[in-house]
Amino acid sequence: MKGERKSINLGLIGCGTVGSGVYRILRDNAEAISLRTGCDIKVRRVAVRDLSDPRYVDVPEGELTTDALQVIHDPEVDIVVEVIGGVEPARTFILESISRGKHVVSANKELLSTHGGEILRAAEEAGVDVAYEASVGGAIPILLPLKYSLAGNAVDSILGIVNGTTNYVLTRMSEEGLSFSEALSKAQERGYAEADPSADVEGKDAAAKLAILASMAFNSRVTLDDVYTEGIAGITPDDIRFGRDLGYVIKLLAVAKDDPDGISVRVHPTMIPVDHPLAAVRDENNAIFVSGDAAGELMFYGKGAGSLPAASAVVGDIITIARNLLSGGRMAGCTCFYRKPVKDMADVICRYFMLFDAPDRPGVLARIAGVFGDNGVSIKSVIQHGTGSEARIVLVTHAVPERSIRSTVRGLEELGAVNRIASVIRVEDRDGEGCREG
Amino acid sequence: MKGERKSINLGLIGCGTVGSGVYRILRDNAEAISLRTGCDIKVRRVAVRDLSDPRYVDVPEGELTTDALQVIHDPEVDIVVEVIGGVEPARTFILESISRGKHVVSANKELLSTHGGEILRAAEEAGVDVAYEASVGGAIPILLPLKYSLAGNAVDSILGIVNGTTNYVLTRMSEEGLSFSEALSKAQERGYAEADPSADVEGKDAAAKLAILASMAFNSRVTLDDVYTEGIAGITPDDIRFGRDLGYVIKLLAVAKDDPDGISVRVHPTMIPVDHPLAAVRDENNAIFVSGDAAGELMFYGKGAGSLPAASAVVGDIITIARNLLSGGRMAGCTCFYRKPVKDMADVICRYFMLFDAPDRPGVLARIAGVFGDNGVSIKSVIQHGTGSEARIVLVTHAVPERSIRSTVRGLEELGAVNRIASVIRVEDRDGEGCREG
Repeated sequence: MKGERKSINLGLIGCGTVGSGVYRILRDNAEAISLRTGCDIKVRRVAVRDLSDPRYVDVPEGELTTDALQVIHDPEVDIVVEVIGGVEPARTFILESISRGKHVVSANKELLSTHGGEILRAAEEAGVDVAYEASVGGAIPILLPLKYSLAGNAVDSILGIVNGTTNYVLTRMSEEGLSFSEALSKAQERGYAEADPSADVEGKDAAAKLAILASMAFNSRVTLDDVYTEGIAGITPDDIRFGRDLGYVIKLLAVAKDDPDGISVRVHPTMIPVDHPLAAVRDENNAIFVSGDAAGELMFYGKGAGSLPAASAVVGDIITIARNLLSGGRMAGCTCFYRKPVKDMADVICRYFMLFDAPDRPGVLARIAGVFGDNGVSIKSVIQHGTGSEARIVLVTHAVPERSIRSTVRGLEELGAVNRIASVIRVEDRDGEGCREG
Repeated sequence: MKGERKSINLGLIGCGTVGSGVYRILRDNAEAISLRTGCDIKVRRVAVRDLSDPRYVDVPEGELTTDALQVIHDPEVDIVVEVIGGVEPARTFILESISRGKHVVSANKELLSTHGGEILRAAEEAGVDVAYEASVGGAIPILLPLKYSLAGNAVDSILGIVNGTTNYVLTRMSEEGLSFSEALSKAQERGYAEADPSADVEGKDAAAKLAILASMAFNSRVTLDDVYTEGIAGITPDDIRFGRDLGYVIKLLAVAKDDPDGISVRVHPTMIPVDHPLAAVRDENNAIFVSGDAAGELMFYGKGAGSLPAASAVVGDIITIARNLLSGGRMAGCTCFYRKPVKDMADVICRYFMLFDAPDRPGVLARIAGVFGDNGVSIKSVIQHGTGSEARIVLVTHAVPERSIRSTVRGLEELGAVNRIASVIRVEDRDGEGCREG
């Protein structure tokens, strides 16, 4: 094959937001892409749901089909590009492509975070490449750097802002003082949130991306089900205001850590210091903060979604595979050599921010502090805001296991001296005493 | 070769800061690196200047030699790792390695920014890979992402903070109100600046890295001599203070832009908006901000120097080449397909911040404004600070060609109404009216 090729042929499955972007990039930047790759890259066939659907890009009628298997079974197709999303039928299409000896590029976080192991094993057996840079962080190059540039490192932790919708909502809450629902409406108006925003708001989207990142960074398969997930619907302007007073910004963080006794993977609202590089990641932007034993702290920032940004990542994968087709090389396949346990959230050690309503009466603070002490939770700082029946207590703990916080919350509820526990938010500091794994 | 290898052998030329880091990573993370690569990676020989020099890492005596050619000519050595820096003898060693069919990994910005074309041509002819991720941005993966992940993009511009010393100095000036020399002393105390800091302070170090970045991003060879360079020694606390009043932070930026009529490459102190992602890059950290037509704005952040960070990048390159040795693949070689002209600095279009002492007398401002008008420079804002003979004028222009600013400065000097032109600093805004190319 080496040196003989004039072109590499693609079969595109899906021509929606991402697929049309791929088509446009390959058309508009064809000359430079051809020079960089060493041959032309051509879209040969495009499978769509309905031929009469409106499309974001003009595709010649002869390239279109409603039968994905026609694309996959076309002997001239070298690389199948799956951009329909969701587990099925994407899984079946990809496995069928692999079994036909096709290389695969996918942008599918739902699939890779649930069936990544199965797909990479099949690819290994068939001797083909599967690349999926676009499944995490849109345009941001993160999987290639993790797998190649940082391959000399033991990666200790990953902190990601990997969902643009929730970052936009939290940024607007923080900068304009909006409530969650006001900010969400604004995100919907601007096109940063879907009509049904639940997958974003509840953290499911971020959890899928985290499973993919953690699997690659820690060389151990992590699936979506392993990820502890909390959304941002409960975050209030008070949380943001009191957090800011303490020097924190609230972000929906996807956190993965690799400790000697296991991996922890979790997505939840998190207070981070205002001078943390992730704190400056505003609006719909994404960023992934990686800590390696040799490289130290790195951050990768950019557009996490959108037609061309996601397509940029897909086309990067296509070019990488195309170069291998020409040189005879291969991408590194599955690198999950270890089987590291995933820890229970109750065992994770963290600092906690807590906000509660408690009447300002003599002895109340002492009784509250007693509950913390009984549960082994050391208090770092406590501030009372307001007086009388309006009094509110803002408290930050030292690092303690999550189970101790849970029992403390139960103890406070039983105590009766606390009217309402408004918020419990994890805190991630940079001094080593943020969230650690116990 | 495929499938038969048990180990890949390295020859290390140099065992100073970076070389000892490479040695340590390969030793300390050997198991994971072997699993990720598919075979062991072994240091076989290490060339040093003097066997009796103290070393940061223990190297068995049998591996050491003072003769680099012994390393290069060893038939068992697969990859030569050059970490001595400087143009010669590094150039001779690398060309000799290539001619012997060895793959090369280098961290050498001086060499790659001046003789990159020669070395990559030689590698192409010999059929070997040359990788040099560590030459730019230390641990930050930037060359691999540019060459692979972003290969579908037309990259429009690169803005880099690629010198840790000057970023540390400017950060301390900005955050503590120190003078340039005070901040430089502090950098030297902390080990962030060398005893002779001129290559850093004058922007030479950043210029070399920019030449490498621009060559790769724009597919056209740019050399160190092409880069217009100004250092930071002239920046004063006044510049920082008045800049902040206008919403700017001063950074030593390495700027590369690719316009239809040519490339511009320049390193100079630059005012950037406080909410620009680069503004949050503090102290000795580096970051590279890339704008692509599909990906949009991306930023890569991390440690730009240091033994293990730089070695992290070197080891990433080693693993990438080792995987290719196993699979039979090749890295993409030289991608400078175009010969784009590099523009004269006088033709670059920019906004400018200017600070000057001018007595507060009737008619003075009108005469000053007249000089700007005569030279076709439109003023965006002008503020007078102080009164009488102490009066100072802070002025920001609209975007104009550099040559117009130069003639304006001459005109002001001839006018006599301006006592002293204290500062002329370029401004890079995000609204499209920052520095552009005319």
